[in-house]
Amino acid sequence: METKIFKSSVAFTLESGYSIENLQIAYTDTGFEKGKKTVWVCHALSGNADVFDWWSGLFGENQLFNESEYRVICANILGSCYGSSGPTNHDEFPIFSSLTMRDIVKAHVLLRRELRVSKVDILIGASIGGQQAIEWAIQEPFRIKKLILIATNAAQSSFGKAFNEAQRLALKADATFGNENGGKAGLKAARALAMISYRSYQDFALKQRDESDKVDNFNAASYLAYQGQKFVSRFSPLSYFSITKVMDSHNVGRGRGGVKAALSQIQAETLVVNVSSDFLFPLCEQAVICKHIPRSQFGRIDSIHGHDAFLIEYAQLNSLISNFLYKSKISKYSPLKLNYHEQ
Amino acid sequence: METKIFKSSVAFTLESGYSIENLQIAYTDTGFEKGKKTVWVCHALSGNADVFDWWSGLFGENQLFNESEYRVICANILGSCYGSSGPTNHDEFPIFSSLTMRDIVKAHVLLRRELRVSKVDILIGASIGGQQAIEWAIQEPFRIKKLILIATNAAQSSFGKAFNEAQRLALKADATFGNENGGKAGLKAARALAMISYRSYQDFALKQRDESDKVDNFNAASYLAYQGQKFVSRFSPLSYFSITKVMDSHNVGRGRGGVKAALSQIQAETLVVNVSSDFLFPLCEQAVICKHIPRSQFGRIDSIHGHDAFLIEYAQLNSLISNFLYKSKISKYSPLKLNYHEQ
Repeated sequence: METKIFKSSVAFTLESGYSIENLQIAYTDTGFEKGKKTVWVCHALSGNADVFDWWSGLFGENQLFNESEYRVICANILGSCYGSSGPTNHDEFPIFSSLTMRDIVKAHVLLRRELRVSKVDILIGASIGGQQAIEWAIQEPFRIKKLILIATNAAQSSFGKAFNEAQRLALKADATFGNENGGKAGLKAARALAMISYRSYQDFALKQRDESDKVDNFNAASYLAYQGQKFVSRFSPLSYFSITKVMDSHNVGRGRGGVKAALSQIQAETLVVNVSSDFLFPLCEQAVICKHIPRSQFGRIDSIHGHDAFLIEYAQLNSLISNFLYKSKISKYSPLKLNYHEQ
Repeated sequence: METKIFKSSVAFTLESGYSIENLQIAYTDTGFEKGKKTVWVCHALSGNADVFDWWSGLFGENQLFNESEYRVICANILGSCYGSSGPTNHDEFPIFSSLTMRDIVKAHVLLRRELRVSKVDILIGASIGGQQAIEWAIQEPFRIKKLILIATNAAQSSFGKAFNEAQRLALKADATFGNENGGKAGLKAARALAMISYRSYQDFALKQRDESDKVDNFNAASYLAYQGQKFVSRFSPLSYFSITKVMDSHNVGRGRGGVKAALSQIQAETLVVNVSSDFLFPLCEQAVICKHIPRSQFGRIDSIHGHDAFLIEYAQLNSLISNFLYKSKISKYSPLKLNYHEQ
């Protein structure tokens, strides 16, 4: 899918007060056609605008979200290294190290206007994508009709912030971080750590099993080193630093009287999906979302694969989303939800 | 408690085939006295021989294990930087990067003979301390009378190996690693990451809560940076590298026909303690131990604090251990255990 670039002629002011001149947003758009509903996808940390590539179990010719029925739009997030304004195509890194989720959503809104999308029929995101989607549904409650939030939260947890800080410490342990083409060893370590948080004890037990008499070169270690190295060849250490900071300050309740008050402003019919083995975004987080969004419905992916199940468990994901879009009535409470209401 | 040094005059051969000349073992020993039972403590990753200092809720004048009733012995492990032979007091780092749990236990046995301890009445360890204790109870089944294994496993999990590998990648991201006084930034990142694995989502939620309108300098981040920095001032990057490797190759089943066969050789009456929120050494690991050690008993610490609960939840720990030592009969199965038998 071809990625286009939107360039803004107006200075773009961030929540921090900094301003980005010559803002650009990389995006894909299958195009307006009468009768087609618009699906807007928000991507996760290391994703890009080509949703047909990275979310192929949901988006594609024979998938639930196909071009024949839907107009599909996906924008690369600010701070990233895949075409939108970020530390790799702007000189001023400090600007991006204070970027917030609200800035990213503000850019989405700018693009929405540019593309003349007055209503987003379906807004969908998982992980940081879900953090964008939930923020957007609060910023523009009457423009988002249906909202699908997968393995995400309304405010970054302290546990999540800890994982991100440990990753940034690994980035900074590499003295070449900040130099041109520097920071690769640090990024490798950071990605290895992140991979653990995206998976689960059982996932590692199943996929990285060792022969019993080994004393070195274990599969889990080779796997992480391989994943880290692969990531270094496609992602920027500066972008990684910036986007983990964005996650950490994610809090829909900031300046809005708290999370509960913010969530209660959402008008969209909402599906909130939990992954049973996700220890980075555990059930209590989706329970809070489900409780306080007025028209919400709960869904669960049963999986041993952890947070990343949103890129793996397509059968369950398709079933939950189809049911939400085409069959079910929104009910305020689901049985599972009730068990996890009170924090 | 004064730490003594035992120096061996005989070359000490490691499982890898390497040999350590001038082996030394740092240890504490409250001394033999007729009628006193001997408690031998195996310490965890960053511990030392002074158990009265770091495990003061169990060891001390008014504690369960006090000098009046017990002879208390604790030896610093090989590879460490607290007095025993390790990469900081020997020239040859490669020797220590291939160290195994069996080598560490072999050194404990050497010291046991030196101290003329023919039977260890109680052998206790948590985490890597438990890994040593379980290995020792297999190496010398008729010398260990009672065995207390806390938050530990019979073989390192792939998930645990992944955490350790990510930490070693952080160490290696620091180009000064291996230099004299080098590797500090890498060790800081590694320790920060480790701290996450020792705690839990709920522990961070409770203790590192932020005011809702912050956008930076979150408590979880300051906490980890502080813990990382504090650790750098007291521990060696090379020792850290070596001991995480020791953990990874820990597998009591190696060369013994598997974990089950190895555990079945243990003669000691054994208490196996799980921490309910320990995601690094989860319940399934203690269940395996409990199932295959012939005379074993299961205990659980209910805690939100994660793996580190063995340094926090002293009331429960004291109660479980007292009960095991003085009150209970060993029963093969506990109700909780039954639920987690089959892997």
